[in-house]
Amino acid sequence: MDKAKYTNFVLHSYWRASCAWRVRIAMNLKNIPYKINAVNVLKSEQKSDEYSKVNVFGKIPCLEFDQIVDNQTKKIFLSESTAIIDFLEEAFPEPTLYPKDLVSKAEVKRIAMHIACNIHPIQNLPVIKMVEGFGREISEWPRHWITEGLKTLEAYLATTRGKYCFGDSITIADVYLVPQLLNAYRFKVEMENFKNILEISKNLSEVKAFIDAEPDNQPDAVKQ
Amino acid sequence: MDKAKYTNFVLHSYWRASCAWRVRIAMNLKNIPYKINAVNVLKSEQKSDEYSKVNVFGKIPCLEFDQIVDNQTKKIFLSESTAIIDFLEEAFPEPTLYPKDLVSKAEVKRIAMHIACNIHPIQNLPVIKMVEGFGREISEWPRHWITEGLKTLEAYLATTRGKYCFGDSITIADVYLVPQLLNAYRFKVEMENFKNILEISKNLSEVKAFIDAEPDNQPDAVKQ
Repeated sequence: MDKAKYTNFVLHSYWRASCAWRVRIAMNLKNIPYKINAVNVLKSEQKSDEYSKVNVFGKIPCLEFDQIVDNQTKKIFLSESTAIIDFLEEAFPEPTLYPKDLVSKAEVKRIAMHIACNIHPIQNLPVIKMVEGFGREISEWPRHWITEGLKTLEAYLATTRGKYCFGDSITIADVYLVPQLLNAYRFKVEMENFKNILEISKNLSEVKAFIDAEPDNQPDAVKQ
Repeated sequence: MDKAKYTNFVLHSYWRASCAWRVRIAMNLKNIPYKINAVNVLKSEQKSDEYSKVNVFGKIPCLEFDQIVDNQTKKIFLSESTAIIDFLEEAFPEPTLYPKDLVSKAEVKRIAMHIACNIHPIQNLPVIKMVEGFGREISEWPRHWITEGLKTLEAYLATTRGKYCFGDSITIADVYLVPQLLNAYRFKVEMENFKNILEISKNLSEVKAFIDAEPDNQPDAVKQ
């Protein structure tokens, strides 16, 4: 049993970044209070010398907090959304983001990892910028990879879904799905054949923890 | 407590694929017996109709096994290396792939996820093929992304390493590091400034679970 306490959470975040958005949803679902420190990735603030003291990987999100063990307080900086969310799941088990049995838990994680490894990295900003340097039309590349990834996801969700990605309880699969869909819309992916994804997305859009985590509801949101 | 039993493991694998390699290392470290079903990704066998019954995502690895609950046996197919390895960690906790305290556990997972999300997907075969279609020299793209990812990893490992990535015990960080390095060599990444990575890699190259999982020691290895 973990005897440490964790408190004073600050999430280094950018309003539109998918990985920061995942962490916001997870913390909202678990009712963990946190402050936002906005890092403007369009100005490359995540690559600054100052921010490298927060996250040597030069990426957002990063979760800063106090770990208290035997009255000793240590400042912790954690990055990588999956590492952060898995930490929060164990440190704050209720409400859980996973089904109880191990195979169902793995199936839910399979959905999240499909998004986190097979879709998101390839259509992320630094990669798109490099492709753009090749003289390609900017949205062709992300549209291709998101479409391919959502096709197989749609087929899989047909076998797992209820109101949400996995039955009728919200899981980490839903936490990863919603931010990915904004990118799908942004890059004009044709969504009409993804009926399961669209229905799940609509159901999640009514959940307060998801609404509060939306980019437009962040302190650093730029109104358009 | 999970009361199910898991047995008769078959790993759908390709000898040179990093993600299948990760699972082989993890299963070897945990002494879980498994058979290999070789899927030749160079012949796109993972996209065949037959294989789509194994993994609807059309990817290797996929772990096939029997889940036995109350004398009822159910055939399970799990994909996504991180979902598979996290499942194995909970189903077969000893020897563990993680430190005990939650922050250390998250720091180890942070390393694994940096490799799994920030490096590997962008230099994976389907992405390289698409870049090649743009008329770019084949190894320029993966070399760039691997170099960038290893630079920050090298800096982070300086703060966490011992004999291995995180102190002197083997963790999931090591499981993800080793397959990534073959790709670094393959795409001629300049490694001489990555002293921590090279030393850890040398130490891991002497561990039987890692040696047995190497591509050249797989039944489908093509001798060169």
